[in-house]
Amino acid sequence: MIEGRSRVIIENVQPRIDDGRYPIKRVIGESVNVSADIFTDGHDSLSAAVLYKKPNGVEWQEISMNAISNDIWKAQFIIEEIGEYRYTVCAWVNRFITWQLDLKKRFEAGQDLSVQFQIGADLIEGISKRANPNHTATLLEVMKILRGKAENEAKLNLALSEKTSALVFLYPDKRFASTYDREFLVTVERAKALFSTWYERFPRSCSSKEGKYGTFTDCIKILPEIARMGFDIWYLPPIHPIGKTNRKGKNNAPKAASDDIGSPWAIGSAEGGHKSIHFQLGTMKDFQEFLAKAKYHNIEIALDIAFQCSPDHTYVKEHPEWFRWRPDGTVQHAENPPKKYEDIIPLNFECENWEELWKELKDVVLFWARHGVRIFRIDNPHTKPFRFWEWIIRECRQEYSDLIFLSEAFTRPKVMYKLAKVGFTQSYTYFTWRNTKPEFTEYITHLLTTEVREFFRPNFWPNTPDIFPEHLQYGKRPAYMMRLLLAATLSSNYGIYGPPFELCVSEAVTGKEEYLNSEKYELKYWDWDRDGNLKDFIARVNKIRRENEALQTTWNLRFYEVDNEYLIFYGKANRDFSNIILVVVNLDPAHTQSGWVKVPIQEFGIPADQPYLVHELLSDDKYIWHGEKNFVELNPHVSPAHIFLVRKRMKRETDFDYFL
Amino acid sequence: MIEGRSRVIIENVQPRIDDGRYPIKRVIGESVNVSADIFTDGHDSLSAAVLYKKPNGVEWQEISMNAISNDIWKAQFIIEEIGEYRYTVCAWVNRFITWQLDLKKRFEAGQDLSVQFQIGADLIEGISKRANPNHTATLLEVMKILRGKAENEAKLNLALSEKTSALVFLYPDKRFASTYDREFLVTVERAKALFSTWYERFPRSCSSKEGKYGTFTDCIKILPEIARMGFDIWYLPPIHPIGKTNRKGKNNAPKAASDDIGSPWAIGSAEGGHKSIHFQLGTMKDFQEFLAKAKYHNIEIALDIAFQCSPDHTYVKEHPEWFRWRPDGTVQHAENPPKKYEDIIPLNFECENWEELWKELKDVVLFWARHGVRIFRIDNPHTKPFRFWEWIIRECRQEYSDLIFLSEAFTRPKVMYKLAKVGFTQSYTYFTWRNTKPEFTEYITHLLTTEVREFFRPNFWPNTPDIFPEHLQYGKRPAYMMRLLLAATLSSNYGIYGPPFELCVSEAVTGKEEYLNSEKYELKYWDWDRDGNLKDFIARVNKIRRENEALQTTWNLRFYEVDNEYLIFYGKANRDFSNIILVVVNLDPAHTQSGWVKVPIQEFGIPADQPYLVHELLSDDKYIWHGEKNFVELNPHVSPAHIFLVRKRMKRETDFDYFL
Repeated sequence: MIEGRSRVIIENVQPRIDDGRYPIKRVIGESVNVSADIFTDGHDSLSAAVLYKKPNGVEWQEISMNAISNDIWKAQFIIEEIGEYRYTVCAWVNRFITWQLDLKKRFEAGQDLSVQFQIGADLIEGISKRANPNHTATLLEVMKILRGKAENEAKLNLALSEKTSALVFLYPDKRFASTYDREFLVTVERAKALFSTWYERFPRSCSSKEGKYGTFTDCIKILPEIARMGFDIWYLPPIHPIGKTNRKGKNNAPKAASDDIGSPWAIGSAEGGHKSIHFQLGTMKDFQEFLAKAKYHNIEIALDIAFQCSPDHTYVKEHPEWFRWRPDGTVQHAENPPKKYEDIIPLNFECENWEELWKELKDVVLFWARHGVRIFRIDNPHTKPFRFWEWIIRECRQEYSDLIFLSEAFTRPKVMYKLAKVGFTQSYTYFTWRNTKPEFTEYITHLLTTEVREFFRPNFWPNTPDIFPEHLQYGKRPAYMMRLLLAATLSSNYGIYGPPFELCVSEAVTGKEEYLNSEKYELKYWDWDRDGNLKDFIARVNKIRRENEALQTTWNLRFYEVDNEYLIFYGKANRDFSNIILVVVNLDPAHTQSGWVKVPIQEFGIPADQPYLVHELLSDDKYIWHGEKNFVELNPHVSPAHIFLVRKRMKRETDFDYFL
Repeated sequence: MIEGRSRVIIENVQPRIDDGRYPIKRVIGESVNVSADIFTDGHDSLSAAVLYKKPNGVEWQEISMNAISNDIWKAQFIIEEIGEYRYTVCAWVNRFITWQLDLKKRFEAGQDLSVQFQIGADLIEGISKRANPNHTATLLEVMKILRGKAENEAKLNLALSEKTSALVFLYPDKRFASTYDREFLVTVERAKALFSTWYERFPRSCSSKEGKYGTFTDCIKILPEIARMGFDIWYLPPIHPIGKTNRKGKNNAPKAASDDIGSPWAIGSAEGGHKSIHFQLGTMKDFQEFLAKAKYHNIEIALDIAFQCSPDHTYVKEHPEWFRWRPDGTVQHAENPPKKYEDIIPLNFECENWEELWKELKDVVLFWARHGVRIFRIDNPHTKPFRFWEWIIRECRQEYSDLIFLSEAFTRPKVMYKLAKVGFTQSYTYFTWRNTKPEFTEYITHLLTTEVREFFRPNFWPNTPDIFPEHLQYGKRPAYMMRLLLAATLSSNYGIYGPPFELCVSEAVTGKEEYLNSEKYELKYWDWDRDGNLKDFIARVNKIRRENEALQTTWNLRFYEVDNEYLIFYGKANRDFSNIILVVVNLDPAHTQSGWVKVPIQEFGIPADQPYLVHELLSDDKYIWHGEKNFVELNPHVSPAHIFLVRKRMKRETDFDYFL
């Protein structure tokens, strides 16, 4: 039989992903806000606590929960260490508090309290037996007074005093405590999991000389400029040997010319596969030199993990059982009928020898981790089994706890969320295709206010080598600036594919969201400093992100009102509101738009009758604002946005200095 | 290692109460609508099925699920037996359907299909090995044709034919099927769990002679009239010996006069406790005679289970350890400070000897079940542990599967819902205090459209001996009629406390929701046939409930528009819309109200341009309505409501007859 005296019910513990099957995600400094429905029969008072255990912790830490309303209890704990936290909820009947509350009511109703004081004394006697010796005496003294001849009011005051309550609080009677029957996990990752600034660029297009195949040595040369632009991750498309069989020509032509260089995603040739480097880029030694130099510039190198092969990959001969073979004896290439990708053959995750396949793929990740890579952008994870990802991410993290995995899945929402649940650190999103204020507001509100926020960290990309959205094709420089600014201020994780981005490239395949003459299929030379480039603008935006804590998380975003449908207005603040950023963006890349924003001065603690200073960080202009409603006007050809730093407290003396 | 080739993900199976900890509830004929999020990696087609097992069933039944949208799949099964059903979800990659769909796309794109037909032939060869021998030949013939020299179009038509698809459907390849890792339960109860009409009446007030203590023999005499009024359950307040110590006097006076008869909820005296009958009511033989006579009138007798004692209960001496004792040596009486209930002492469910206490209380229920009682109204279940209820209901149902338990908990929502989750068949609700159209709509919509509907069966009571709501005190006869009609048509389970209800009693304790001179504390003589009584009205409403299947469930209720805030308009239909009831109620007991109702003719399948007949079942009037908007007017002093039976199909010939 169960313990029938455990009378407290704990239900609906939140956060709880899929009944507790998956962990929530955090970085150090973030909080976990736990809530639960907690109640019991009768009218007894309860106490409840969140129990949590640090990574490698032995003992449970306890945080008291507070009853909010409608039997909902809440508490919060702050994450302090990387690794895996556990949490659950515990609650118990608190007879002493029940007695205190009843005593007060009885007193107010003028009832005889003599027996009640004796009951209280008995309770305290029981508590004293559990107490630390240096508290025992105090408790026994309370007991004696309650049993003694003192006036009722003196006894009452003693019984209800903060001192008595605080002492009793230390020794709860948990004999019949209920503990929720499941423990929940928190995966805590390093800071970059939440705040990262990605730059994607093909290393082979990094040569300073037109027509020359770029090398890691060329990459080293441009590191200072990438650092100046404020990026802290440089993600390289695959760097492995490229297959020749069925190689695609320029602009995805079915047949390559003899001098076509092929898509780097057609991985593997006789020279090697996923653990090798394409010879034209350099050697492993060159690559490691590049990693070291990048580190010097505070840039981490992210590699692309594309678990697929060219028909020339060594796996095909060594492990024919890892692929699907057709009745005509040919290997099955990648396809999504009627589309064909003949230069790529997928791995068959349903093969008999799947365990060996999984182990080899894990070995690929660990190979690069051993060589110093800690960030991986996973290509098309939604075409490989979810269980495989859950396994490989967990296994690899056991060896390298600082690994970051970005999920490149542009597909249906439940699929994207599942990949995040099984362990991906960050995820590409639908940001790329959201354009209007309602679209942004609805999508981002969904990401921020549903349980999705607990496990899905968005990474906003205005473009990728595969996606050249129409608004960039037609919107030109103002659109590029606007999209960068939205990505960089809406989401603490964002990235761009350059140099097409900062050079505001506009040549597209007609009617498609694809770059014309894409460097996926050919060598490109980029005139990186050409007129109209956005490098300084990007550097400025990224500097603002680095210098303002409010922009270093996504979860603090709030949308605010502005009376123009082309303007979007939102804000972010750090925990103590010492850093408040307001952003207003003109979503119309063609016309000047103006309107009245409604600043949530109450939320920010700004008195309605006092002026406050907003410092526009892009232009370095300053404005004095008053009250909620303030006017803004944005000409997209000058700047598509304002980023305001709100200075809450203006003192007459220092204001003057500030304006100098 | 897990089976890595099980690639299909099943998430968010619904209905699922508290992660599957509690069963959902049904009666025979109701459906279980199961949904789940189901998807896999890549672009493979899936198949999915709900698996369910009947009570005592050995084999799983399988119902194919359909993909709706956004990776949500659905299927439904109908409940056919009383007992405990189980259900879960299973899904697998369907390579044959993937092949069929791709084949079609390849054909439309004009691609070479020769290898594809071979792949399909191989698939069918594999399927033929799993097939029933009398299907093997057909499958092998399809295989041969696909491998043979027929025209592409002939092969394509064969491959995609309904016949081929239907045959292949029978032999799915479930080697790597995923099955949800939890099975869910359905508690199936008898029909009365969902459709019941309760009448509460004190047996001691059933004498036909004023001042005489009513007996079971008196009760027998009024059974025909209770049956005529249309009730199928007569619930008796406790029938056990009543304690004398601290007995309450009339109107809850702290001291009883010598001739005061006491509250029947002060259970137990030297003459016996919960298994005894108060001597003035009759003997056990009389009681069983009464049960038998009630059965003859299709009335079931429900007993009150109040697990509490008078200080004179035999338990107090025999099991002092089941009670709380105060330091002054007295037993702790019931209280909710500062309120005291000195005639009642609660059981201490936290006592050392709690297991023996549980067993004794179970024995009380089983005692009455052995004597033929199958329905229990449980008094204040929210003051006893939830785990106790979960245990006792399960244990008692194992011996008597037809037991019905009504939870009398008027308390916070989560507590009420928890009692329903742990096993109570029906529950009292907040209906008693809902008055305005928004209040009714919001509350009932919550009960009907959230997961609450899966486990919480509402039972609507306009009054009880403990609750005499203000709208009845002041609203007089029109209010009584209105509340009865709302209860009886909104909820398929409802009840009244009579005769105060049908006699439209209006004497209340000033400023309280309590009856003046309540029969809880004194003998009452009711002039049951006095002028203005509602017995015929009640009989009519209950007859309408019995004759219209649409009113025999609660879950089919829909609110519709009417352009007057004092009018509420709603409807119910049975599964095939052969019985459609529309109800419009005037919520204002003082004034005539009129308005235009908006009939959902499209939902009902009524053409917009055809008249239809509505038969008003209270008055027997008939109206011809046209289209959506129709006019109604209700004078509360005549009738507070219309109950319309909608006759969809009017044929000119029969209409005429109908009006005769």
